[in-house]
Amino acid sequence: MILKRVRNILCLAVVLFQTIAMNSQSSVGKLTSYVNPFIGTGAVDKSLSGNNFPGAVVPFGMIQLSPDTRHAPDWAQASGYDYNDKVIVGFSHTHLSGTGVAEFFDVLLMPTTQNLGTGDKNYLSTDHLYESEFSHKQESASPGYYQVDLLKDNIKAELTATERAGFHRYAFPLGAQANVIIDLDHSLNKGSWSTRIINSQIRQIDEYTLLGYRLITGWAKLRKVYFYIRFSKPIKGNDTFDGNRLYTDNKIVNGSGLRSVFNFGQQDSVPLLAKVGLSGVSIENARQNLDAEIKDWDFDYVVQQAGEKWEKELQKIQVEATELQKEIFYTALYHTHIQPNIVSDVNGDYTAIDYTKAHVSDGQRAQYSTFSLWDTYRAAHPLYTILQPEGTADFVNSMLGQYKVYGYLPIWQLWGQENYCMIGNHAIPVIVDAVLKGVPGINAEAAYKAVKESSLISHPNSLFDVWEKYGYMPENIQTQSVSISLEIAYDDWCVAQLAKRLGKNDDYKHFMKRALFYKNLYNQETSFFQSKDDKGNWLTPFDPFKYGSNGGYPFTEGNAWQYFWYVPHDMSTLVEMVGGDKAFVKKLDDFFTLGHDENSGELNDNASGFIGQYAHGNEPSHHVSYLYNYAGEPAKTQFYVNKILTELYDTTSAGYAGNDDCGEMSAWYVFSALGFYPVNPANGVYVIGSPLVTKAVIDVGRDKTFIIYTPRKSEDQIYIQSVKLNGKPYQNTFIRHSDIVNGGTLDFVMGNKPSKWGAEPKNRPVDF
Amino acid sequence: MILKRVRNILCLAVVLFQTIAMNSQSSVGKLTSYVNPFIGTGAVDKSLSGNNFPGAVVPFGMIQLSPDTRHAPDWAQASGYDYNDKVIVGFSHTHLSGTGVAEFFDVLLMPTTQNLGTGDKNYLSTDHLYESEFSHKQESASPGYYQVDLLKDNIKAELTATERAGFHRYAFPLGAQANVIIDLDHSLNKGSWSTRIINSQIRQIDEYTLLGYRLITGWAKLRKVYFYIRFSKPIKGNDTFDGNRLYTDNKIVNGSGLRSVFNFGQQDSVPLLAKVGLSGVSIENARQNLDAEIKDWDFDYVVQQAGEKWEKELQKIQVEATELQKEIFYTALYHTHIQPNIVSDVNGDYTAIDYTKAHVSDGQRAQYSTFSLWDTYRAAHPLYTILQPEGTADFVNSMLGQYKVYGYLPIWQLWGQENYCMIGNHAIPVIVDAVLKGVPGINAEAAYKAVKESSLISHPNSLFDVWEKYGYMPENIQTQSVSISLEIAYDDWCVAQLAKRLGKNDDYKHFMKRALFYKNLYNQETSFFQSKDDKGNWLTPFDPFKYGSNGGYPFTEGNAWQYFWYVPHDMSTLVEMVGGDKAFVKKLDDFFTLGHDENSGELNDNASGFIGQYAHGNEPSHHVSYLYNYAGEPAKTQFYVNKILTELYDTTSAGYAGNDDCGEMSAWYVFSALGFYPVNPANGVYVIGSPLVTKAVIDVGRDKTFIIYTPRKSEDQIYIQSVKLNGKPYQNTFIRHSDIVNGGTLDFVMGNKPSKWGAEPKNRPVDF
Repeated sequence: MILKRVRNILCLAVVLFQTIAMNSQSSVGKLTSYVNPFIGTGAVDKSLSGNNFPGAVVPFGMIQLSPDTRHAPDWAQASGYDYNDKVIVGFSHTHLSGTGVAEFFDVLLMPTTQNLGTGDKNYLSTDHLYESEFSHKQESASPGYYQVDLLKDNIKAELTATERAGFHRYAFPLGAQANVIIDLDHSLNKGSWSTRIINSQIRQIDEYTLLGYRLITGWAKLRKVYFYIRFSKPIKGNDTFDGNRLYTDNKIVNGSGLRSVFNFGQQDSVPLLAKVGLSGVSIENARQNLDAEIKDWDFDYVVQQAGEKWEKELQKIQVEATELQKEIFYTALYHTHIQPNIVSDVNGDYTAIDYTKAHVSDGQRAQYSTFSLWDTYRAAHPLYTILQPEGTADFVNSMLGQYKVYGYLPIWQLWGQENYCMIGNHAIPVIVDAVLKGVPGINAEAAYKAVKESSLISHPNSLFDVWEKYGYMPENIQTQSVSISLEIAYDDWCVAQLAKRLGKNDDYKHFMKRALFYKNLYNQETSFFQSKDDKGNWLTPFDPFKYGSNGGYPFTEGNAWQYFWYVPHDMSTLVEMVGGDKAFVKKLDDFFTLGHDENSGELNDNASGFIGQYAHGNEPSHHVSYLYNYAGEPAKTQFYVNKILTELYDTTSAGYAGNDDCGEMSAWYVFSALGFYPVNPANGVYVIGSPLVTKAVIDVGRDKTFIIYTPRKSEDQIYIQSVKLNGKPYQNTFIRHSDIVNGGTLDFVMGNKPSKWGAEPKNRPVDF
Repeated sequence: MILKRVRNILCLAVVLFQTIAMNSQSSVGKLTSYVNPFIGTGAVDKSLSGNNFPGAVVPFGMIQLSPDTRHAPDWAQASGYDYNDKVIVGFSHTHLSGTGVAEFFDVLLMPTTQNLGTGDKNYLSTDHLYESEFSHKQESASPGYYQVDLLKDNIKAELTATERAGFHRYAFPLGAQANVIIDLDHSLNKGSWSTRIINSQIRQIDEYTLLGYRLITGWAKLRKVYFYIRFSKPIKGNDTFDGNRLYTDNKIVNGSGLRSVFNFGQQDSVPLLAKVGLSGVSIENARQNLDAEIKDWDFDYVVQQAGEKWEKELQKIQVEATELQKEIFYTALYHTHIQPNIVSDVNGDYTAIDYTKAHVSDGQRAQYSTFSLWDTYRAAHPLYTILQPEGTADFVNSMLGQYKVYGYLPIWQLWGQENYCMIGNHAIPVIVDAVLKGVPGINAEAAYKAVKESSLISHPNSLFDVWEKYGYMPENIQTQSVSISLEIAYDDWCVAQLAKRLGKNDDYKHFMKRALFYKNLYNQETSFFQSKDDKGNWLTPFDPFKYGSNGGYPFTEGNAWQYFWYVPHDMSTLVEMVGGDKAFVKKLDDFFTLGHDENSGELNDNASGFIGQYAHGNEPSHHVSYLYNYAGEPAKTQFYVNKILTELYDTTSAGYAGNDDCGEMSAWYVFSALGFYPVNPANGVYVIGSPLVTKAVIDVGRDKTFIIYTPRKSEDQIYIQSVKLNGKPYQNTFIRHSDIVNGGTLDFVMGNKPSKWGAEPKNRPVDF
């Protein structure tokens, strides 16, 4: 399947983008020009879509203004946009990038020339939703900008955004009747996650201004979304449907199924502009957000500003690489910076998790949400500690906001709401990592209190009383027990490390004891982690190939092969448990070569991007290619890392091997292309793989840069021959965070044959 | 059915209460002693329950702390309590009094001695809900106080309340293990109105203190309910279920199905006290509400204060009557003063209809909700204009608060949320009545703007574009078209009157024209109001006996017979339309004598309390017995009013002929027992019926009283022989609001035979 898949991808890449160039080039012009927002926006064959969206967004913005190609997006089009779809239903203002569940899609606008009052009034009723064909040939996107021709009515639609406001430019055919649909009923599939519009309002307060809100329950338990819209031309009239009930020229309609069309009369050659402010707090705050961020009617200026915001972030890593690599690299870097998302208003208000109005704390620039932590704690958050120290502090303080009200830290938080998606408590590694790395702006004691209590107060999928009583999660009490046990053991290790740093020795001992509970599920006979019941019996039959999804089985979105490797805090012990270096390497070799049956019902939806049992399409595998370093075979790590970098990423719409998961798949690429990866995301240690880019200059702040040189004569020079750190020979197969952020140079000498570099036991990755 | 029903009721009255005394007595002692909170709490036979609750409440309080006898109350036990039930499931803090839909039931507490940790931990899981038997012999209630013995565990539970806080006193058997269940999942039937707990939290912050919230969607679109609980004894531990998942001794649990049991250890002889503050805004506000209103641990003092608050309100009408009549009268007066309910906190905060935090406006004492306006505009709100002028201003200003955000006034508002229950826009008569009567504290121009726009902006069941286009509601466009047309015509008349008062002559003409649209549905051939389609064709077949419910038929919770009389603003024209006085009287006679088939499937659930086609159990009939006055036969009004007063009200738990509907059924009794009723609830004119009480002293404020004397030698003296107003002979069959609130005396001379008093055309009720 892998081979077939790669062939397809390469064909598509050539046909669609024709950007493949194998010769290395220097950066020319703006780095934003390398970003291709269409990467990851669609699946081909049996693979998974990256679930990315192509629309307009600025770094970490509340607004993701993007086309939706479905009236009721579901998990396979969770970003609202599928590159393989043929119609656009409109442009909504909020989207998730790369998730496996659809959500958001707030305040959809869609221009049309369909006439009002001609008997066609039903076209917005439930049975007559509007949509327009479009073509990728008449569509383009760049960071902060998207444009498409809506073929049905011959309208050119352009989108841009600020942090909290969207900006639309609609060029209608000369003389055509201009209408704009505003759909407040547009949402994920109402059949999913109990999704329902609880109430909504659309109100016209003058010829140019609309406002309103919607209250929606769905994957996020409850979202309040307030909006304020200013048009550049006067509204002549409107039709508003509430379900199938039509209201004509009402100045205000309240309902739970609102779809309006606003009529702007016949058009001259000046495009119609619409500016839309959002807020999770109030209409007045939405107005303030809009007026603070888009003061004028200069669409092109906002496009330029959005591009400059992206350029500033992308410039933090300047790479020399092939054009193809740069396109993948900068798009990946772009995708890592779409979220977490601002949820506070320009005045600092936001809606807290208990549905009260809250205000950002002192020193916090904004409140953030969209924490897909089971994914992003692995590489995205470590990346932010390098590139976004201020953002990291804001993210951490935002998470601490949930703890204060909810009693524990986020598991998966969106729009400020906890949805308990996935397992573990991986805000803990994020926070511990940030504190241990010395990221400014975080109160270490407050952070410790939060990570400790989040590890003691039982909550869904985290029954700590059970954990402490049994020393593992018994499957008959807590399903997904093996995955949860392994992941919580790691989180416990993180708590212990922060306790140690803060001199809390009793806590350190307590959590270090828990951190080793993973051993209690290791079955020496099979050499796998397996589930037990509460009597201590291994559950049978055991099949290491059999997949679980999200409940009802000991493994989460994976199988025993994939979860075997999840002891990131104690790899040396794991190597010993298996029987030492050779046995461990053999097991890794098996992992990367054992086939799987692609037609097997055992396969989880989230598993894709296979190399043997390795599935790059989902996170449990992500660190595994780096593990050869722990057993003295770094060259094998180099081989597989390069294989993944070059075979499982491309520049097509199917460019990711699975969901991008809020930038996690992208962050793997960014780190791995630079040459290292945080196998343990909280110990400040990055394990060295096989650098892909020939040069990288990383702006690590405080006017310092960390430069990585990886000259290569041919693309098969994937093996490290020698390394120098700051000019001195360097044998360790890892590099420390401090070495990076203090600035310096890392020189790789590459070759097309494995070397002995880093193969000594003393060169293996350490805990700290 | 009526005869059988009355017989049952009388038997029950004698057996259960033994309070029937036919001789008139003066008021002795406190008037609260006449209130029997069990009246209306249960149905017998095929009748409808009043849907009242027996629990503790203070006038217009946010808190109604009352026992619930069902785990999932439905419409037939909408108050949570059915007198015929055998078990109590707990005491929740919010209840509706008399509605036909269940809602509220927030924060249920239940004491129990069931041991924890003995393998019986399942008793709070979804399949093992706890309840206790109780007996009416060991149960009592008075205004602001309720007590019951919970027989299962031998616990005496007592309840009292302030405006925003509930107070529980639980006396456990000496030495028993004391536990208190707190159920945040308790709600109306989850199968109704999409009811679902969206999220909830329970948190213990110290040994004595719990706090949390729940977010619930149901009949009210969304309610946020925050609580703060202080106990008088320390908590030893807790078990909390989220659905069937148990958490033990967690200090905080978040979930959507939370049921906790808190353990207080073995008990000495001192009862356990629990004080519970609520807020619709925040936990902090719930704390402020609690601490402001219940400062100490003196339960009896709070009981006494609650009683005094009620005594103050009841003293506004001092009546002399039989003990039975006084029990009915003061209980009715009590029921009228349970709602509207305060929804703002002691600090003035409340949650607005757009889910933002708002604050009471200047001069407003509190924000109120629970506006069951289709019911209460008829008599409850006119009664408030006499007894509660300050409250009336607050109610009106609270309704204007919805208009400001929602664009139109409340139809049926609860917990600040619009649910569109029933038809018409009867905030309009309430507001117009208050302004025209000169109630202080209302901005007339602002009020006018609200009633006018609420009559122009189309919204559910009020399609004003259709109304103005056709001059009626065509049934094929708007179902319930006859009922809606008649009721909106009346609302339009109200708007017109306020326009006239404010000199807006164009508006006056416009709305007066609309006020006469009712004529467009009058079918001269049948002498009924009937439905038409949008082509102007009468819909056939037409059956004046056939009932509609709440959609799909031209009549709402009634039939053509009952809706025929709904022209309260233009009765003289209606008399003419039918063919003059004789024909009108004949039609009224038929109405009160034509039988109905009690087994007919045509009967609506809400129709009950029959006298012929007259159904006192629901509001459309309520004014009809007074209509003989408009055709020169006041004695017949006197006959039927007396018949209703004496046969369709009693002191049993089935004491109302139908749902009390937030005090509307009660308000009918209060007015009618005094001797008059607001047939047109907005013209300041009360139509005289047949006074029941022998003397009534009404405190009309400003140190003035209005005294009604109705001496009677025997109970069959139901006919008015003559009347004097302030000592002068008075022939009019109506009395003006101004005559009442300026103070004075109204003397009735009664006899057992009809007289000619008031029979002249000049004595008929006028518009103003």
